Order: sequence, then structure tokens, then C-alpha cells
Amino acid sequence: MDYSLAEIAARLGERVMGDAEVRISQVATLEHALSNQISFLTNSKYRAQLDNTRAGAVILGEADAQASNLPRIISQNPYACFARASALLNPLPESVPGVHGSAVVDESARIDPTASIAAMAVIGAGVVVGAHSVIGAGCCIGDNVLIGCNVRLYPRVVIYYGCVIGDNLIAHSGVVIGSDGFGIAMDEGRWIKIPQIGRVVIGNDVEIGANTTIDRGALDDTVIEDGVKLDNQIQIAHNVRIGAHTAIAGCVGVAGSTTIGKYCQIGGSAGILGHLKIADHVVISSFTLIGKSIREAGSYAGIFPFSKTDDWKKSAVHLRHLDEMSNRIKVLEKLLLKQESLKGSAE
Amino acid sequence: MDYSLAEIAARLGERVMGDAEVRISQVATLEHALSNQISFLTNSKYRAQLDNTRAGAVILGEADAQASNLPRIISQNPYACFARASALLNPLPESVPGVHGSAVVDESARIDPTASIAAMAVIGAGVVVGAHSVIGAGCCIGDNVLIGCNVRLYPRVVIYYGCVIGDNLIAHSGVVIGSDGFGIAMDEGRWIKIPQIGRVVIGNDVEIGANTTIDRGALDDTVIEDGVKLDNQIQIAHNVRIGAHTAIAGCVGVAGSTTIGKYCQIGGSAGILGHLKIADHVVISSFTLIGKSIREAGSYAGIFPFSKTDDWKKSAVHLRHLDEMSNRIKVLEKLLLKQESLKGSAE
Amino acid sequence: MDYSLAEIAARLGERVMGDAEVRISQVATLEHALSNQISFLTNSKYRAQLDNTRAGAVILGEADAQASNLPRIISQNPYACFARASALLNPLPESVPGVHGSAVVDESARIDPTASIAAMAVIGAGVVVGAHSVIGAGCCIGDNVLIGCNVRLYPRVVIYYGCVIGDNLIAHSGVVIGSDGFGIAMDEGRWIKIPQIGRVVIGNDVEIGANTTIDRGALDDTVIEDGVKLDNQIQIAHNVRIGAHTAIAGCVGVAGSTTIGKYCQIGGSAGILGHLKIADHVVISSFTLIGKSIREAGSYAGIFPFSKTDDWKKSAVHLRHLDEMSNRIKVLEKLLLKQESLKGSAE
Repeated sequence: MDYSLAEIAARLGERVMGDAEVRISQVATLEHALSNQISFLTNSKYRAQLDNTRAGAVILGEADAQASNLPRIISQNPYACFARASALLNPLPESVPGVHGSAVVDESARIDPTASIAAMAVIGAGVVVGAHSVIGAGCCIGDNVLIGCNVRLYPRVVIYYGCVIGDNLIAHSGVVIGSDGFGIAMDEGRWIKIPQIGRVVIGNDVEIGANTTIDRGALDDTVIEDGVKLDNQIQIAHNVRIGAHTAIAGCVGVAGSTTIGKYCQIGGSAGILGHLKIADHVVISSFTLIGKSIREAGSYAGIFPFSKTDDWKKSAVHLRHLDEMSNRIKVLEKLLLKQESLKGSAE
Repeated sequence: MDYSLAEIAARLGERVMGDAEVRISQVATLEHALSNQISFLTNSKYRAQLDNTRAGAVILGEADAQASNLPRIISQNPYACFARASALLNPLPESVPGVHGSAVVDESARIDPTASIAAMAVIGAGVVVGAHSVIGAGCCIGDNVLIGCNVRLYPRVVIYYGCVIGDNLIAHSGVVIGSDGFGIAMDEGRWIKIPQIGRVVIGNDVEIGANTTIDRGALDDTVIEDGVKLDNQIQIAHNVRIGAHTAIAGCVGVAGSTTIGKYCQIGGSAGILGHLKIADHVVISSFTLIGKSIREAGSYAGIFPFSKTDDWKKSAVHLRHLDEMSNRIKVLEKLLLKQESLKGSAE
Repeated sequence: MDYSLAEIAARLGERVMGDAEVRISQVATLEHALSNQISFLTNSKYRAQLDNTRAGAVILGEADAQASNLPRIISQNPYACFARASALLNPLPESVPGVHGSAVVDESARIDPTASIAAMAVIGAGVVVGAHSVIGAGCCIGDNVLIGCNVRLYPRVVIYYGCVIGDNLIAHSGVVIGSDGFGIAMDEGRWIKIPQIGRVVIGNDVEIGANTTIDRGALDDTVIEDGVKLDNQIQIAHNVRIGAHTAIAGCVGVAGSTTIGKYCQIGGSAGILGHLKIADHVVISSFTLIGKSIREAGSYAGIFPFSKTDDWKKSAVHLRHLDEMSNRIKVLEKLLLKQESLKGSAE
């Protein structure tokens, strides 16, 4: 399948400069693009790559409109424009509607006739699967789960009983939604389990990366609002709420009952303790533990900088003595202050 | 299903104050409870919520016995009492004994007639599954695995060959028990694999969260003692031993051959290096790396505090120069000492 | 199955001291070995255990050749020698060639007749599985995946469409290869998805631990070179390249488009930010975040040392004031310098 550059621009609502008839069949990096491919520049510092590219066309921002003579689309947001061009050129493979012969679907489940249930999937009682949704191979959907339209579950996703999934969810392989939260109470030397009777409720347009886990609520629900994007290997504990359009990178852990605002961005392997409130538009660096609520939008970090191990050892040894170091400075300051005042009185 | 407050208290061995005939069908938070629901207060600082609750009954500690006029259970351990009340009101769904037609069970496996093997499960040769155990959809149980009674494996748990599972294990979806430990030896520029021939041996009353992995031992076994509670996404390496009733929060990694004592509590995303010994009753903060053995009960931490990114940058830049900073203080101290002694001798 | 010590040594190309006819059937630790088992000593500091072992034979380095009178193999690399002896004594169980009746294999897939496809596996269109490869129970292999020879996928591995797998891969349960990278672009208040059209390409002799995830490339491929060893719960983002014979411990996250050199060793729970270059032969400590490219071989660390929580609090409070602390030292130095120079001019 290919398109002329003019067709692509028209579908994306963007404008063309140069030869609009060049045929484009794929997107590619500036470095590897061929003459039937379109590439993009989002950062002017890569202009050298633009000069050397063999791409048939490029997507450029307004500021870079004259940076190339190639056939080009000029966009206010070249990265988003590229994303849309790629989606146009790489439509998802069609899935065959219907239930694979090997799947086990409870007779009380309501599967939309346009939906697709792949091999080895197991669908519980009372489940609803909406139009054009695809349940991948080996997925297990617990009783009474509600799944919206245009949902795509890759192979081996598990959704526990009673959870509610909006439209357009993409969940990658190994995702677990609705497992029990970590609720235990110590009683005479033994932990006893607190039943986790809340649900996970997921809004529309959410994506969840491979092997990410989202626990069901203890009493109330765990909630993932519209447009949230979660990378791989993330752990979302019970009763967390993640605000709309927040994006979280891989390996992050969010502890129980924490509320994260809208449009936040959380870096990889960061952590957020439980029962906190994070405001909207907060950016958290990778590898940072948030141990207190954040009430103000902005960027937050707490990373131990790396060095050569020998240098690190020299510095790290003082970390256990910062208080002492601070006290020694105080002593020096007092001594000097005394000297100065003695000197002052002597003069 | 509902109970009178008197019935609930009687079953839990607790005492009632106020109207013991109120009917209760569910547990809920103080904030959301309705008149047929019971809530609880474990921390006096939430007394304001107690005043405003619409709950039909509450569970209170002795100290708070008079803090409400609602029908109430008074307990020495209100949180544990609430857990037991919730378990009473939320019994696990009954599972149908027997083997689902789609499951593949080796003919040499011995499945107790009261046990349940769900759809798509695969059970190897020589496996034993005890009374009332439930093997969820799509679970894979390797050859010669021994599974005790009342075990509940949620969908898609894998247990490798030869592992031994006690009674009452709860393992959530995506758990992997008995995968090979990370044993490699460098030989002439290539890593060669060290066969991992130990097992994983799990005691009674253990719970394991979603997508947690526990590697089999290299030579001897990896051991999880009775009553251990593991949250999601935890990695337990080969030959680790975790002492009875220790609880570990999500995303923790424990490296090989480390022994953790009994009744420890380990915070989320913490790490423990290999070949260490952690005493009983040790509490480790979230995000803390334990790099040496801990011989004494107590609380341990090592977290880099977060701040606004600009402030963090100002501080972090000094971390690579702490040794120099310490030396500069020493120089100042010597100088001042010299001055003082000169002054002393001059006087 | 057992061997004489002479047979074992001959097969490994090593030499024997003492009684070469002792029969050996298994490897074991010095502490637990029995008279028909062989153990090993790789570190002279464990010589006391060597004195007390009941092993029938031991593997020793040249330097320890006289440290025991037991029948022994003397090796230049006793750990690798032990690994090879264990592999000899613990051959992998034979898998039955052919496709299990419950597996769903697309008719266009080409499965080598010596390969084994276990129960509940799902194999897509155009897949190729090489000689002697074993696809475990419940694995899902997407369309057009190419799998080499002697590959072993444990139960419930997922490989997305189009990925390429070399010979001898071992992938443990829960591994996901080829899931979408975390590619999103903000557009008028919403994240839009960037199709991930690259592949994952894995060389020969790679091992991947349980629940590790490797994302497919956004445009170009994610590449894992020959001999790479990945532990459990690792996250490899899109377009990462990991150099040959690099070993990565559990829970590490590597962000997008980073290139890691050959023969690197990365400790558990470490992190590497995106778009970085790590040289060959770099060693990174556990729990260390690498935030800049590393151009020089060597050992790098950035760990916050743990202490008792009370002591940690005393130190940690100063971390937010290091800049101020540094400035106070500067002030003291200036003051003293002034004093000294005044004194100098006064003398």
C-alpha cells in the first residue's frame, strides 16, 4: 500500500512543499529511509542527518521548512504528524471476527459479533466484549468483566472478575489487571488476608505495557482515567487513581491509595509511596522516590549521581557523616565569629 | 448474604456495643459505607470521618469505644477484626471440583477429587494436587510438582518441575515459580550456563503477588517459609531463604543466596544484594539497597530525598565532591587550631 | 546415570589427582555433597568447608591442588569446569518431537520435524521453528516469527509478529519479546500512539529470565547480540542494542535507543537512561542510575548507602542543603585567608 505525499498530507490536514506526487509506502529514520519512505525532523540539532538522508520525503516543523529541498510536509507538530503518518501507513492487521474453536467462552458471555476471540482464550460468565475488540490468544477474562469497543488485548493478558475496561484499551502481553492488592493485617504473630473487593476501572484510550500489573481496590476501586499511558513492568497498587493523560515509564511502582494528577510524566524506575497526592502537570525524574505529596506542578528529582566506583566510594563514605560535617562547619563558624568579634573589640 | 452484627461479633469472638441486630452485608470505607455496611477505624486521627459516616456499624479499638454511638464491635485489633469480618462477608467463589475438558493432565498426575483444574491448564507427569486446591485457567505445572491443600493458583501461574508447594498458597496471575537462577560462568570469552538443579520449596500460608518470580536453587533449594507474603513484581533469586511471616512490598529484588529473617518488612522497590544475612524483625525502607548483612533488628533506610529538579541539581553536583568538602573542613580546622594555639602561646 | 571421575575429566579435558575411579552421579555444594557427588572450590577463603566436606570428589584450581586429598579435578577455571560437569550430569530432559494435539499451529508455519510444540501453544502464520527447538506449553508465537535451532521456550513465552530469534535461545516463563515500545506523541492535549514497526532481533546463545520484557523497535530494530544473558524482570525498551556477552542482573531497566557495549556487567535494579552509549567492558553496580554515556571501560556506581533509619534521617536532611554547606565552607575559607594575609602583612 502506498500513497502520494499529497494524499498523506490531505488525510493528516497538513501542507506540502515540493513534489507532492512522490509515492510513500513507509516511515523510517533519516538514517535508514529509502526513496519510497518518509522521515521526520523534530529537533534542529539533527539537521546534519537531514542533509544526508535518502528519504523520499520528510516531515518538518515550521522553523525548519527551508532546511531541506526534499518533498516535505510542514507541520506545527512534526512528531505528532509523523505518528499519524505512520498509523496511516501501518494499519493494524485485520482480525477475524468470531470465536476461535479452541477458546472457552461461558455461554452467558455477550461477545459482539464484530469482536474477535483468539485461540486458547478463556472468557468467564457474564463477560461483555464490545464491538471490534480483539481478545488475544491465551487471555483469561474473569467473570462479569466489562470490555468496551475497539479494545486490543495481546496474548496472555489476565483480567480478574468484575473489572471495567473502557474503549480503545491496548494491553500488552503479560498484563494483569485486577489481582488482589497487598492487604494484610498482623494478628497474633500471623498475617491475615484482607479480602480485596474493589475493582479496577479503566477509562478510554489507555495503553498498558507488557507485564504491567494493576491491583484491584481493597474496598473502593483502583482507577485509571482516560488517556493514561503505562509502559512495561509497572506496578500499580490497590486504590491508586491515575489522572487523565498521565504517562508513566517502565518499572515504576506506585503504592496503595495514592492519587496522581492529570498530565503528569513519571520517569522509569521511579517510585511513589502510598496515601500521597500528586498534583496535575508534575514531572518526576527516573529513579526518584516520592515520599511526600506534591502540591505544585513542576519537575522533581532525587537521583544519586553515578561516578567511577572508586570516586563513589570516597564520596559515599561521607554520606553517613553529613550531620557531623555540618556540625564541624558550625563550630568553625562560631570560632571565627568569636575571633572576629574579639578582633573587633580589640581594634 | 447478610448477618446481624451480633452474629458477626460472635463468629469473630468480639463484643458488641449498641444495637446488635443491625443487618450487615458488606464492609466499606467510612467515607462510602451505607447503612447495611460495616466500616472500621484503626487510627484515631480519622475520627472526623467516623463522625460523618453513614455506615450501619463500625469496628473500633478499645480506646475509641466511646467515639461513636453507632452499633459497633470493640476489638483489641480492629484492623484484624475488620479483615476477618470482610472474609466472612466475602467468601471465595466456589470452584467446581474436577478437571475442565480442555485441560491437559498427564495420566500419572494425582488430582484430589475435591480439587479443581480450570480450562487450558497443563499438568505434568507425577504432579500431586491436594484437596480443595484450585489450579486456574492456563496454569502450567511442571513434572513432579507437589501442591498441598487449599492452594489457589490464579490464571497463568507457572510452576517448574520438581517444586514443592505447601498448603493454602495463593499465587496471582503471572507468577513464575522455579525458573532457572541466573547462574553463569565466564569461560574463554563466553558465558556458560550452570544447570540450576535445586528446587523452590514453599511453606504453608504463603501469598505471592502478580508477576512475581522465584528462581529455583542452583544446587540447594530456594526456600519461602510459612506465612511469607510477597507483593507483585518481586524477584527472588536462587538459593534465597525468606523467614516465616516476612512481608515484602512490590518491585523488590533479592539477590542470590541471601537469607532474610522472620517477621521482616521490606518496602517497595528495595533491593538486597546476594550472600547476605538479614536478622529477624528487620524493617527496610522503600527504595533502599541493603549492601551488607544486618545483624540487629531495627529499621534501616537509604533513600535520596527528592526536591524540585533545580534544587536537586544544586545539591547533587556536590555529591561527587564530598571528599574534597570534607578535606577543606579539615584544613580549616587545622588552621584554626594553629591560630588558637598560637594565640594561646602568645597570651 | 553416573560416571567415573576419570570419565568426567576426560570429557571436560581436565586432569585428575587421586582416585580416578570414584563414581560420581551429581554435583553439590561442599556443605551438602555426599560420597557419590562432586563439589568445587573457587575461592580459597572457603578452604575450611573443603576440609569438612563429605564429597566423593572436588574440582580445584591450580593454586589449591594440594588443599585436599580427595579425588579431584584440577582446572584452570574451576567454576567453569564445575558448570560443565553439572551440564554433563544434568542433561536437559528429552522433549518429544512433534506437535501436541491441543496446540494451534497455522498451516503455513514450518516446524522442523525434530522440534517439539507443547500443549496449548499457539503458532502464527509463516512461523519457522528450527531443528530440536522446544516451544513450551501455552507459548504464543506471532506471525512470521523466525526461530532458530535448539531454542528452548519455557511455558507461556510470547513472541510478537516478525521477530527473529537465533540458535540456542533459552527464554523462561513470562518472557515477552516484541511488545510495542513506549512511543507516544502529545497532540492537542492527548497522547497519540506511534506505531512500533521495528522488530526484536536476538542473536545466538542468549538466555532471558522469567518475566523479562524486550520491546520491538519503533522504526529500526531492537537488537540483542550473541551470548547476552538477561536475568528476570528486566525491561529492555525499544531500539536498545545490547552488545555480545553482556550480562544483566534482575530488575534492570534500559530506556529507549541506548546502546550497551560488549562484555558489560550490570547489577540488579540498575537503570540506564535513553539515547546513551555505554562502552565495552563497563561494570555498573546494582541500584545505580546511569544518566550519561560512559565512554571508558571500568566500574561505575551511584548508590545511597543505607543506615539505621534514625541515622539516615540525620544525614538525609543535609542533602537538600549541600549547596549551602559548600558556600559556608567557602565563606570560612575566605575569612581565614583574609586573616592569614592580614597576619602576613602585619608580621
